[in-house]
Amino acid sequence: MATVAPPQDPGTNPRVKAVFDDIRATRGSDFINNVWRYLAFDAGLLETTWAEVKAVMATPSALEPKVKEMLYAAVSIANACDYCTHSHLAAARAKGMTGVEQADFFRVVASAGKTNHLLNALRVPVDDAFLIDKE
Amino acid sequence: MATVAPPQDPGTNPRVKAVFDDIRATRGSDFINNVWRYLAFDAGLLETTWAEVKAVMATPSALEPKVKEMLYAAVSIANACDYCTHSHLAAARAKGMTGVEQADFFRVVASAGKTNHLLNALRVPVDDAFLIDKE
Amino acid sequence: MATVAPPQDPGTNPRVKAVFDDIRATRGSDFINNVWRYLAFDAGLLETTWAEVKAVMATPSALEPKVKEMLYAAVSIANACDYCTHSHLAAARAKGMTGVEQADFFRVVASAGKTNHLLNALRVPVDDAFLIDKE
Amino acid sequence: MATVAPPQDPGTNPRVKAVFDDIRATRGSDFINNVWRYLAFDAGLLETTWAEVKAVMATPSALEPKVKEMLYAAVSIANACDYCTHSHLAAARAKGMTGVEQADFFRVVASAGKTNHLLNALRVPVDDAFLIDKE
Amino acid sequence: MATVAPPQDPGTNPRVKAVFDDIRATRGSDFINNVWRYLAFDAGLLETTWAEVKAVMATPSALEPKVKEMLYAAVSIANACDYCTHSHLAAARAKGMTGVEQADFFRVVASAGKTNHLLNALRVPVDDAFLIDKE
Amino acid sequence: MATVAPPQDPGTNPRVKAVFDDIRATRGSDFINNVWRYLAFDAGLLETTWAEVKAVMATPSALEPKVKEMLYAAVSIANACDYCTHSHLAAARAKGMTGVEQADFFRVVASAGKTNHLLNALRVPVDDAFLIDKE
Repeated sequence: MATVAPPQDPGTNPRVKAVFDDIRATRGSDFINNVWRYLAFDAGLLETTWAEVKAVMATPSALEPKVKEMLYAAVSIANACDYCTHSHLAAARAKGMTGVEQADFFRVVASAGKTNHLLNALRVPVDDAFLIDKE
Repeated sequence: MATVAPPQDPGTNPRVKAVFDDIRATRGSDFINNVWRYLAFDAGLLETTWAEVKAVMATPSALEPKVKEMLYAAVSIANACDYCTHSHLAAARAKGMTGVEQADFFRVVASAGKTNHLLNALRVPVDDAFLIDKE
Repeated sequence: MATVAPPQDPGTNPRVKAVFDDIRATRGSDFINNVWRYLAFDAGLLETTWAEVKAVMATPSALEPKVKEMLYAAVSIANACDYCTHSHLAAARAKGMTGVEQADFFRVVASAGKTNHLLNALRVPVDDAFLIDKE
Repeated sequence: MATVAPPQDPGTNPRVKAVFDDIRATRGSDFINNVWRYLAFDAGLLETTWAEVKAVMATPSALEPKVKEMLYAAVSIANACDYCTHSHLAAARAKGMTGVEQADFFRVVASAGKTNHLLNALRVPVDDAFLIDKE
Repeated sequence: MATVAPPQDPGTNPRVKAVFDDIRATRGSDFINNVWRYLAFDAGLLETTWAEVKAVMATPSALEPKVKEMLYAAVSIANACDYCTHSHLAAARAKGMTGVEQADFFRVVASAGKTNHLLNALRVPVDDAFLIDKE
Repeated sequence: MATVAPPQDPGTNPRVKAVFDDIRATRGSDFINNVWRYLAFDAGLLETTWAEVKAVMATPSALEPKVKEMLYAAVSIANACDYCTHSHLAAARAKGMTGVEQADFFRVVASAGKTNHLLNALRVPVDDAFLIDKE
């Protein structure tokens, strides 16, 4: 059902194999999820996509991993991305999001969707007080 | 520049005044930002919108206030809501988001926007491992 | 295939049962559609979501029920929400939308999608004549 | 501030003049709003766009003109189209939308935005009862 | 699974038959894909939709057919339109898009999705140098 | 009007200066547009964003530069990104897009917006003939 065909034997391409090995090592799991199996149709696209996701999501940074997965899922929900919503909510759960937090997350995302539509309808001017750069 | 006109003397409508008083008391500030001043064109819409935003965003819950503002801003960015993006990033800063965290937030939101487009292009099937409800 | 699991015996939770009973009474039907069965994973989220949908959609107001369902469906189509598009078009039909009206509805929604893209490309300034609030 | 320049003397191009004359005759007003003045940069695009908008929005059909403008505005809000939101809400008011109806319209659009996000997060299967075509 | 039912014997409606015949003649193929089979529920909507797609996509113009299909697919991906993404990527391949070009296409669309989110977050003013119409 | 403040003397940060120098060298122009001036608030985000845009957009690849800018602009229009639409249409013009091609581009993008909404409303099943990966 995809728009590209995943290679049947991805391990035979050394560039693909190197990315898959790094995904397994980074996550401490043998499981390779579909996005990487299909992206293997183009080794360059697979390499740059994984490098970015690893740098942004699997490398310690200012925000905690669970929060980053929830932010990722929030954007994915607003963009109606089916795969991304499933995969990043699963990742948020794997990184500690509880059921109560998930319900709270849904509440915030749904309310944001509501007021986004309300403000895009009202077309209210932004308050000066919110601006950092007044130039 | 809005699609409704804000009332000139909102304080003369007791329902509007009650909401404005509650906004000031909840936030400990006299400042009423534009969304509430314009929503005052319809007292009922002002009341239900503020009641929801207060319940979801200004009431202690499972997620910390700073994280909730960042989630709200993430959805607003994906929905291209100008006012909401400015107001909720300002709120996140007011609730403790540092400059380093804001840069990290931008990195996550931007990468999510990228892979959302990539996955909406690839149309890859969702892995069974991500599903909670397999029915 | 959802991101939460619906409770197996929702009737055993009195808060869930109360909402389900009110849905049945409001609609005069025993049928509970999936959104409510899944939202039952969190009684609070179920209660506030149903309270809002009931107040906005199942309570007499300025616009007729059929028109409100079509407006709801129009937003859902623009947001690529699969479930919402199906459920609110079904509701519009149940509230009297004819086949000829549905074709007219599709024509308007499709033309709006077209000129939305054209105007977001042209980036034309809004005419003063359209503004209510000139401040 | 646009991405094309409107012709300085649009009346000198007979194809543009014919469209402008038809806009004025159809609306019974001398006013030509900006979208048409800018689209005049390409006579063919102006002609086909006006022909479609006239056929869909200015020709009697199954739905009443006021409802069609509200549907148009609903899609425009969801797509964050600034110009379209202003122009079609102005048109809806010109065709009889009252202030109370506008507030009701905002309520429906905002609730749809909310549940669209909730359902895009929950990813609930569509009920068989909603499907017309079960194939 | 659609929101309308396709007619069982579309050939018995002469207006539908005329459109189907023209689709087959234009494409040099007997295959009628689902969008046209379902749109046949309303002959008028079928006629105007096909007339537009034929004029824009199947008629020689300034841009080459392959590029037009890729542009169409790019918009469809950003709008999360499942059917459109599949059909226009298939059309782009049929009109000569190679596998290497498809990977390059994915790279551009994904990067655009990324910086769209970044700029919608930064809310940076547009440079004067980019404006054609400075009025 | 932005959500971050651009550094007053970006040249004093050697990492920022290196990126600005590379932008100037790559483009053969002294002009630094606003997105880079504002992104300089975080040197790391500036570096990775420029590295990606340079690799994808300013490096020879399967698609010609003009087409890549039009694809970028198409996604930006669908995402309602004001800055991106202006900057990438300007870039497409700088790389050879003629006025006639721009009008053709608008025609394709607008028609895609239309049928995206129509198909997201119809919810028609994808034809088997379009699928590459039938698993």
